[in-house]
Amino acid sequence: MVRLSEIEIDPAYLEEYKTILKEESAASVKLEPGVIAIFPMYRKDSPTSVRILEMYASKAAYEQHLKTSHFQKYKTTTLKMVKSLKLVDMESLDAATMPFVFRKLKQDNE
Amino acid sequence: MVRLSEIEIDPAYLEEYKTILKEESAASVKLEPGVIAIFPMYRKDSPTSVRILEMYASKAAYEQHLKTSHFQKYKTTTLKMVKSLKLVDMESLDAATMPFVFRKLKQDNE
Repeated sequence: MVRLSEIEIDPAYLEEYKTILKEESAASVKLEPGVIAIFPMYRKDSPTSVRILEMYASKAAYEQHLKTSHFQKYKTTTLKMVKSLKLVDMESLDAATMPFVFRKLKQDNE
Repeated sequence: MVRLSEIEIDPAYLEEYKTILKEESAASVKLEPGVIAIFPMYRKDSPTSVRILEMYASKAAYEQHLKTSHFQKYKTTTLKMVKSLKLVDMESLDAATMPFVFRKLKQDNE
């Protein structure tokens, strides 16, 4: 399961938001076997436009992720900072190999 | 250097385009030391909306990439298939570690 989230952040909270997101994504990849990769980035010409490439082992792994304390903490603390949120479901063009590649990378880092 | 390309494909050429892109991205990652990662995907609700996450070691590595025969072949053969193309420059939120992580992954696969 691959997703590209498009998030617009209130400029007043940008630095605070980035710190919280960085913590949350690191915790997710580290603590959850079903989170294969979370890659947060932002547009160079518009730093309040955040994009997050997310990769989960399955829909169940994603639903589990939503229940974790680190995700819940991120969600509640950033609610007022997020101006808009679009969750765009993607399909990897090389679906057969890419999730495997990320999973292998994650295992190597453990 | 991180980029998220947004490409709209003529539906008549979609399958052909995807085959060519898959070949080109595989060749780039394999043959070019400066290409850290190329991750092509498309929107589930709009398969003609292709997104490519691209990671290069430097601007010079990217310019080198544009001159390779596999990129030139991709560019010329897909020209008529591409309806629109937006090259969006991104900044990794975790700039310090992510390119390293992808580079390590690539080395492991070599």
